Amino acid sequence: MERPDPRVTIREVFRDGVTAPDSLAVEEPLEIRVDGEAVATTMRTPGSDADLALGFLFAEGILAGAADVSAVAHCGRPGEEGFGNVIDVRSAAGIRLDPERLLDGHRVAPISSACGVCGRRSIEDLAARVRRVDPARPVPRALVVSAVEAISRAQPGFVRTGGLHAAVLVGDDGALLAAAEDVGRHNAVDKAIGALVRARRLGAGAPPGAGPAVLAVSGRTGFEIIQKAAAAGLPAVASISAPTSLAVDLAVHAGITLAGFVRGGSMNVYSHPERLGASRR
Amino acid sequence: MERPDPRVTIREVFRDGVTAPDSLAVEEPLEIRVDGEAVATTMRTPGSDADLALGFLFAEGILAGAADVSAVAHCGRPGEEGFGNVIDVRSAAGIRLDPERLLDGHRVAPISSACGVCGRRSIEDLAARVRRVDPARPVPRALVVSAVEAISRAQPGFVRTGGLHAAVLVGDDGALLAAAEDVGRHNAVDKAIGALVRARRLGAGAPPGAGPAVLAVSGRTGFEIIQKAAAAGLPAVASISAPTSLAVDLAVHAGITLAGFVRGGSMNVYSHPERLGASRR
Repeated sequence: MERPDPRVTIREVFRDGVTAPDSLAVEEPLEIRVDGEAVATTMRTPGSDADLALGFLFAEGILAGAADVSAVAHCGRPGEEGFGNVIDVRSAAGIRLDPERLLDGHRVAPISSACGVCGRRSIEDLAARVRRVDPARPVPRALVVSAVEAISRAQPGFVRTGGLHAAVLVGDDGALLAAAEDVGRHNAVDKAIGALVRARRLGAGAPPGAGPAVLAVSGRTGFEIIQKAAAAGLPAVASISAPTSLAVDLAVHAGITLAGFVRGGSMNVYSHPERLGASRR
Repeated sequence: MERPDPRVTIREVFRDGVTAPDSLAVEEPLEIRVDGEAVATTMRTPGSDADLALGFLFAEGILAGAADVSAVAHCGRPGEEGFGNVIDVRSAAGIRLDPERLLDGHRVAPISSACGVCGRRSIEDLAARVRRVDPARPVPRALVVSAVEAISRAQPGFVRTGGLHAAVLVGDDGALLAAAEDVGRHNAVDKAIGALVRARRLGAGAPPGAGPAVLAVSGRTGFEIIQKAAAAGLPAVASISAPTSLAVDLAVHAGITLAGFVRGGSMNVYSHPERLGASRR
């Protein structure tokens, strides 16, 4: 028997005078712990929770790579109420993952689009946290187009529910390295990045050149997406929709090429167009 | 001279080999303070910041109505760097607004879709916080349709940038009571609700029957939207798109009628269809 997809659930819906079953995107809280200590809670779609936890902690600078971690596991016992909604990331031997680094010491804070902005009220403050991506690393324009095209192929849940964001990562050769869906855009990005951290293709210890070249996301690109891309050293971010002003400003500062409205081979490039090479259509 | 719209800004965009100006939704951090003490930071679109602060604190149960507040003002001086990105809500004489009530005492936490869920890992925990809306209050089906139609009329910024969410509140008579746009869906809802709190049409001291009947939002409906609607005692929430599973579960518990995919007079009703009256198409 096929296992049910944890990302989708059925609820009764009343429509045109009749009641019928309807598929919905699942949204549930996940508490992320580090060595037993709660560091964040996010509203997420269940599934790939270990990737979500690793990707979130990686983006926040709490872990540098998979070698920093000995285990990632849900707390409690299967069948208990709420099982699956708390996950614990354990430090590797000789390593102490430090949740104090999260949000300047504000712990047990919910994950949000505002993560990392506490006390930072200008673009200069925000930008001071991000490292600059290698400006010499080229990204062919065709790779940006194919990354965005990969979203729809990687997004079966959206087709059924209309309620999930997607994020995909592609390599320099166009290969799909990771794909994730979630009700939260930032969670989808954390899951995709976390999958590569777990596979040791991203972060400390990853072989040179193994990392992704383009992050493509469904929907709009906000500041948080660029912040996570910068933490992962990604040279390009692409979306089918619009970016915000702060996403553009941070992409300019971080050396990231940001493309929006990537549709049918056409795109708007908001930062560092020089990385895409000649100005072909 | 017309004042520039603070919600939209211009950036250079590179497209089809040429560089041209493009309109983008503005995203900037706002720190919300209560009597000088920072309680939350959110990434928001500037404009209606006082409404955002009031609506947020109202939804979190920190203030009961406009009479609890003596003043809401941006900190600092116009022209200073970062001016406009910190706002202070002052307690009225004889009142002490208590930010300790926010997030169970976790202060300086970013606002997020996870607000109010720290340490709460089941729908029972989450639902325990919301009060139940009067089940006898009817909402005509036509009012839900007209509320969603009001979104596009109230959303000039989206037309230009493709990057703003909108929220509108309509009264029992179909009148548009409040409308707001923001890069953050929860901010748009806080701004619309906060505008009515400020006008003493919602919250403690508001005249009976003056409050809104329907909250309509662009995009998807997540848990947080229902949480805010429940705090404001709204009987119905409507959207052009899909809800999440947790939004439906909370709406069922809170006694809120939740409609999705409201388009051209057709809709899916996910909870409490009895409030809409007879099952007309």
